[in-house]
Amino acid sequence: MIRIGLAGYGYWGPNLARAVSEAGETVVEMIADQSEAALERAGTRHPSARLTRSIPEMIADPKVDAVMIATPVHTHFDLAMAAIRAGKHVLVEKPMAETPDRARLLVDAADRRGVVLMVDHTFVYTGAVQKIASLIREGRIGDLFYYNSTRVNLGIFQRDVNVIWDLAVHDFAIMDHLFTARPAAISASAAGFIDGSPENLAHLTIFFEDGAQAHLNVNWLSPVKIRQILIGGSRQMIVYDDMLNSEKVKIYDRGAQAPTTPYADMVAYRLGDMHAPALSTKEALLTEVEEFARAITEGDAPMTDGIGGLRVVEMLAAASKSTQMRGFPVDLMTQRVAS
Amino acid sequence: MIRIGLAGYGYWGPNLARAVSEAGETVVEMIADQSEAALERAGTRHPSARLTRSIPEMIADPKVDAVMIATPVHTHFDLAMAAIRAGKHVLVEKPMAETPDRARLLVDAADRRGVVLMVDHTFVYTGAVQKIASLIREGRIGDLFYYNSTRVNLGIFQRDVNVIWDLAVHDFAIMDHLFTARPAAISASAAGFIDGSPENLAHLTIFFEDGAQAHLNVNWLSPVKIRQILIGGSRQMIVYDDMLNSEKVKIYDRGAQAPTTPYADMVAYRLGDMHAPALSTKEALLTEVEEFARAITEGDAPMTDGIGGLRVVEMLAAASKSTQMRGFPVDLMTQRVAS
Amino acid sequence: MIRIGLAGYGYWGPNLARAVSEAGETVVEMIADQSEAALERAGTRHPSARLTRSIPEMIADPKVDAVMIATPVHTHFDLAMAAIRAGKHVLVEKPMAETPDRARLLVDAADRRGVVLMVDHTFVYTGAVQKIASLIREGRIGDLFYYNSTRVNLGIFQRDVNVIWDLAVHDFAIMDHLFTARPAAISASAAGFIDGSPENLAHLTIFFEDGAQAHLNVNWLSPVKIRQILIGGSRQMIVYDDMLNSEKVKIYDRGAQAPTTPYADMVAYRLGDMHAPALSTKEALLTEVEEFARAITEGDAPMTDGIGGLRVVEMLAAASKSTQMRGFPVDLMTQRVAS
Amino acid sequence: MIRIGLAGYGYWGPNLARAVSEAGETVVEMIADQSEAALERAGTRHPSARLTRSIPEMIADPKVDAVMIATPVHTHFDLAMAAIRAGKHVLVEKPMAETPDRARLLVDAADRRGVVLMVDHTFVYTGAVQKIASLIREGRIGDLFYYNSTRVNLGIFQRDVNVIWDLAVHDFAIMDHLFTARPAAISASAAGFIDGSPENLAHLTIFFEDGAQAHLNVNWLSPVKIRQILIGGSRQMIVYDDMLNSEKVKIYDRGAQAPTTPYADMVAYRLGDMHAPALSTKEALLTEVEEFARAITEGDAPMTDGIGGLRVVEMLAAASKSTQMRGFPVDLMTQRVAS
Repeated sequence: MIRIGLAGYGYWGPNLARAVSEAGETVVEMIADQSEAALERAGTRHPSARLTRSIPEMIADPKVDAVMIATPVHTHFDLAMAAIRAGKHVLVEKPMAETPDRARLLVDAADRRGVVLMVDHTFVYTGAVQKIASLIREGRIGDLFYYNSTRVNLGIFQRDVNVIWDLAVHDFAIMDHLFTARPAAISASAAGFIDGSPENLAHLTIFFEDGAQAHLNVNWLSPVKIRQILIGGSRQMIVYDDMLNSEKVKIYDRGAQAPTTPYADMVAYRLGDMHAPALSTKEALLTEVEEFARAITEGDAPMTDGIGGLRVVEMLAAASKSTQMRGFPVDLMTQRVAS
Repeated sequence: MIRIGLAGYGYWGPNLARAVSEAGETVVEMIADQSEAALERAGTRHPSARLTRSIPEMIADPKVDAVMIATPVHTHFDLAMAAIRAGKHVLVEKPMAETPDRARLLVDAADRRGVVLMVDHTFVYTGAVQKIASLIREGRIGDLFYYNSTRVNLGIFQRDVNVIWDLAVHDFAIMDHLFTARPAAISASAAGFIDGSPENLAHLTIFFEDGAQAHLNVNWLSPVKIRQILIGGSRQMIVYDDMLNSEKVKIYDRGAQAPTTPYADMVAYRLGDMHAPALSTKEALLTEVEEFARAITEGDAPMTDGIGGLRVVEMLAAASKSTQMRGFPVDLMTQRVAS
Repeated sequence: MIRIGLAGYGYWGPNLARAVSEAGETVVEMIADQSEAALERAGTRHPSARLTRSIPEMIADPKVDAVMIATPVHTHFDLAMAAIRAGKHVLVEKPMAETPDRARLLVDAADRRGVVLMVDHTFVYTGAVQKIASLIREGRIGDLFYYNSTRVNLGIFQRDVNVIWDLAVHDFAIMDHLFTARPAAISASAAGFIDGSPENLAHLTIFFEDGAQAHLNVNWLSPVKIRQILIGGSRQMIVYDDMLNSEKVKIYDRGAQAPTTPYADMVAYRLGDMHAPALSTKEALLTEVEEFARAITEGDAPMTDGIGGLRVVEMLAAASKSTQMRGFPVDLMTQRVAS
Repeated sequence: MIRIGLAGYGYWGPNLARAVSEAGETVVEMIADQSEAALERAGTRHPSARLTRSIPEMIADPKVDAVMIATPVHTHFDLAMAAIRAGKHVLVEKPMAETPDRARLLVDAADRRGVVLMVDHTFVYTGAVQKIASLIREGRIGDLFYYNSTRVNLGIFQRDVNVIWDLAVHDFAIMDHLFTARPAAISASAAGFIDGSPENLAHLTIFFEDGAQAHLNVNWLSPVKIRQILIGGSRQMIVYDDMLNSEKVKIYDRGAQAPTTPYADMVAYRLGDMHAPALSTKEALLTEVEEFARAITEGDAPMTDGIGGLRVVEMLAAASKSTQMRGFPVDLMTQRVAS
C-alpha cells in the first residue's frame, strides 16, 4: 500500500482523499490543514488517518510515501519542492506552479531525486478524453487540423486567478495529451466586465508548429453553461460535448478533399456516418490516483507528468503575456520543453 | 409601384426577384443576365418582366426606377456606380465592394445624386435580429459587454473569397445594427487545411471603443452546423440559436454584480428567469425589399444603408490585414466612418 | 414516358405535379380541378400540361396512362374506381378510402384489371424509414419488441377528420412497412378540447400477433412539435427523431438479457455504442413517384401498394371503433388481409 | 428537535438519514436494519445515532418521536401500523402499501391515533413540480386538458414490482398533487420482453371526471433516458423536461380557440412567448423532511399525506387490473376517496 499524505482539506482535498481511499493500492495516511474545522471534517470521513495542522511535519513523516498538494496556487512550489527534497512522490494540483521557471525547477528536482512528479489534470483521465486520445493514436482522425473549445458558464468568479488560469488550463492539459505537435505561439485577448474582479472573458488562439490551430473561448459571464470541443482532422472529426448525459463524444466521418485532378477544381465533401462510442464511466479522479500509484510502483512517468505540467504553465504564462499586448502572439519556441 | 431592374439571375437573384414580386409596392420590370439559360429560367418565373443580356442597357432603361445587383463581388462597384450615375436607387449584394475606398466612393456618389443606396445584409431583417435590436434599444440588456458568435458548418467552400468574407460578414452586419459603440480594432487569425482553396477557418476578436468585445468563430470544415450567438449585457443576456426550429432567441435574467460594500468582497450572481419571445415569421428578404421601397418613397435612409455597408467592408478589410500579421490588431479608428 | 393525369390541384396536388415533372420517366399530361383559380396556378407552373375542370374527362383521356388522386378523402373511392375501370394505373392520396370495404373493392378491381394501385404513404419513402427498414431486414435490430411514436404539434386542426386519421395514419403506414408481424388488435382513446372540432388528442396501443406492442401518442394541441419514434429490438434499439436537422436515425447497441444460468438471477444490461448512419437526402416524394413508374414499367407491386393501403384503412377503422368504447380493444384478426 | 427513528438503511434509507440530519428541526435518533453491514455504514455516517437490528425495538423506543420506513414494500403495512399504534408519526416510502385496503387501514388508524401519516412522494417536492403547482393554482394554465408523461430508460429492472409500480407511481403522485379533478377510470396495457422479469413497458390512460386525460408511457427497455411531461391547458401549456440541466420547466403562451362567430368556422391558434421560470434548487428530499417536521409541529396535513398515498395506491391497483384485461378501463369512481 502506498501511504498518502494530503496537504489541504478545503475544496478539492476531500475529493482526493476519497479517491485515495477508494483506489486499491493507496491509503490516506495523514491529512494536514491549518484549519481546525477542516481537520474535524477530515477526521469524520477518514477516521484512520492521522491529522496535523503542520504540513512540514506531514512531509517529514517517515510513514508518508507520497504527498498530494491541494493548497492555493502560490504555495504549490514551496510545498512540492519540500516534498521532493524529502524523497516523497508528489501529485500537485493544477496549475503546477505560478511561473514556468518554478515549474521547471520542480521537474529538475524530481528528476534528480528520482521521485514521481505528477500534476492533477483531472480532465485527461475522463473516459471521453481517453477515448479521443485512442482514436487519434489509432490514426482514425488523421492529421489534426484544429481544436476548438467553448468553455463558458456563469461564475464562479475567482478572486486570485483570471478565467484563463481557471478554465483555459483544462484545454491546455487536454491538448498537451492529445497533440503530438507542440504549440509554437499563443495569441490571447481578455476582458473583465465586473469591477474589482479578474478578467472573466478570454479568447485564445494557439498556433501549432505543424500548422494546426486551436481556439479557446472561455467566459465566466455566460448565461448558459457550454462545454463543447470540436476537433477537426483530415480523416474524421469529433464533437465532444461534456454537458450531455450520454453520447458525449461523437465521431463524424466527414470532411472535404482538395481537387485530385487538374481539371476538377471544386472541393469535394464527404458526408458519412456518425458514431458515438460507449465511454468508460469510471470516475476520472479514481483513474488518476491509480495512475499515480502505477507510476510509483513501476517507476515510469505518469500520463500527466511534471514535464506536461510545465508545458501547461508555459502556455498559461504566454497567454497572460499576450493579453497584455492586445493579442500580439507570444512565441513558445525558444522556451519550449521536449516531451 | 417601384419598377425594379435586377442584375444577375444566378444563385441569389431568383430570391430577390421573387421577393420583389411578392412585396406590395415593387414590381420586376427587367431582368439582366449574360447567360441565356438564366434568362430562360427568369422568363418562366416572371413572364411579365422584360429580359436582356445587357446590364448597361437595363440600367439605362427609363422605366427602371431602382436596380438590384446580384452579380459577383468584383463587379459590384462598377455596376452600382453606373446605376447611381443614371439616377437609380440601388440595392447591392453583400459585401458592398471589394475595398473600403470603393465602398466610400459609392456612398459619396449616392449622396450627391440623392438616390437610396442599400446593402443586402439579409440577416438584419430576420425576426430574431429585429427582436434583439428592440430589446437592446429598450434598455433591457443594459450595457453590452460581449458578442460571441459561432458560425461553422461543412462547406460550401468558396473559390474566390475566404471564410471571413463568406461567413463573418453576417456578424459584422448584425453587430453594426445592434451596437451603438463602434469597433476600434480587429484581431484575426485564419488557417486553411484544404490545398488550393481559401482559408476555411478563422477567429476574430473585435475591440469596441467602449471596452466591449466581440468574438467570431467561423469555419467551413466543421462536422456539425452551428449558428449560435451569445450576447452579454449588464442587465440581461441573450442566446440566439438560429438552428432551432422555434425559440431561437432566449433572454436570460442572469448576471454578476461587483461587491457593493467594502466588506462584501465576493461577486454576487443573479439567476433569474429565461424568456423566449415569439418572433415575427415574416421572411427576412421580403421585409428587406419593403424597407428598400419605404426608403425610396419616404426619402430617408434604410436600416442597412451604404454607410453601414461601408463600415462592414472596413471591418472585412481590417480582419484580412490582421490575418496576414498572425492576429496583430488592426486599428479601425483612423479610417472609421460616422454613422 | 408515363403520362400522368392529376386530379386535384389544391394543397398536395402541386407537390405531386412537381415531383412528376422532376422524375425521369413521368410527365404531367393533364391536370384537373374544379377551381378555375387552381387551374390558373397549375398552368403557370406546368405550361405544357393540358387543363380541365372535369376529372372524368381527364380519366377518360386516351393520352393519360396513370392517374394521381389528390382530392378530399370522401371522393377517393369513386375517382380511383373510375380510373381503374378505365384501365389506368392509380396513385391515391392517403387514406386510400373511408372504409375497409371500399378499400378492398379498389384492391380487387385493380387486381382484375391488372393495373397498379398505389397509396401515397410518403413517409415510407424517406431516407430515414428506408434505412430503418434495411436495418430490420438485415437482422441488426433482432426481434421487434415495441414501436413507440410521439407525433404532436400545435394545429393544424382538420375539419373533417380527427387527429387519428390525420397523424396516426403515418405511423400505421410506417409500421406496415417495417413489421412482418401483423396487428391483432387496437385499443385507442381520444379526446377533444376545442368545441366544434374533431378529437385533437389520441393514444393508441397496437397489439401485434407475435407479442410486440406499438404505441402512438398523437395530438394537435401540444405547445411543441415532436416527431419521435423509439423502436426496441432484442439486439439493438433505434431512436428516430424527425425534427433534427441531421442524425435523424440513431441505433443503440443496448439492451437487457434474461439471466442465463439458474444461479444468476439478475437482468444484465448491455450499454454499447451508438451509430447514426448517413441517410439518403433524396426527396421522399420523388422516390415515391419513381417507385410508381417502376411498378408500372416492371409490372410488380410498389412498396406501398393497395393491400398495404387497405391494411392501414383497417387499422384506422379499428382505432376509431375503439375510441367509441373508451379503449376497448378491437380485434383485427378476422378482417385481416394477407400481404 | 423531532427525534427520528429510521427503519431500513439499504438503498434509500441513507438519503433519508442525511436529509434528516441536514434539516433544522429533526435529528437521527435511531437507525434499525437487520443487516450488520448496513448498521456499520450507518454508524460511520451518523455516529451519534443509536443502532439496532430490531425495528420493533426502535418503534417502541420512548425517545423516538417519528418513524421513517424505508424497507421493502411488502413490509410497509405492518411496520407503519405498528408505529402508528405506538403513537409515532410516520413517513413511509412509496408506494404506501400493497393494496388500497391496507392503505386505507393506515389512514384510518393514523386518524384515530392523531398522528401524522405521510408518504415519501419525493418528486412532489422538487422545485419543478412546486412551480407547476403554483402556476396552476394561480390560474395561469387555465382548465387542465391533458397530462402526458414519457418516463423511459434502460433498466433498472426490478424483481418484485413491474414498471407501473416502479415508474408510473411518480406520475400518479404528481398528478394527485396538481389536479383538483379526480381520476374516474384507468386503462393500461403492459408487456414484458425479458423472460423471467416483470413487465417492462406499459401505457396508461387516465380519464378524469371532468374530461381531462392523462397518458403515461413507462419503459425499462428504452435506449435513451427520457423524463418529459407535457401539460396542456386552456390558457397556457407546460413542457417539463427533467433531463435538462436548467430550464426544466417551460411555459408556452400557446393554444387554440374554437370559432367565436357563426361565420368564422376555423380554429384559431395563439403562438405567444415561452417563459422558463427560475426554479428552487433546494433538494427535494430536504424540503420533504421539513414538510414532515412542519406537519408534526403544526398538527395539520402534509402535502403528500396518507389520503394522497391511498389514492396513488388505488390508481396502481386499478392500472394493474386493467393490464390483465388488455386495457379495459377500470373504474375508480366507486372506490374513490375524497381529499
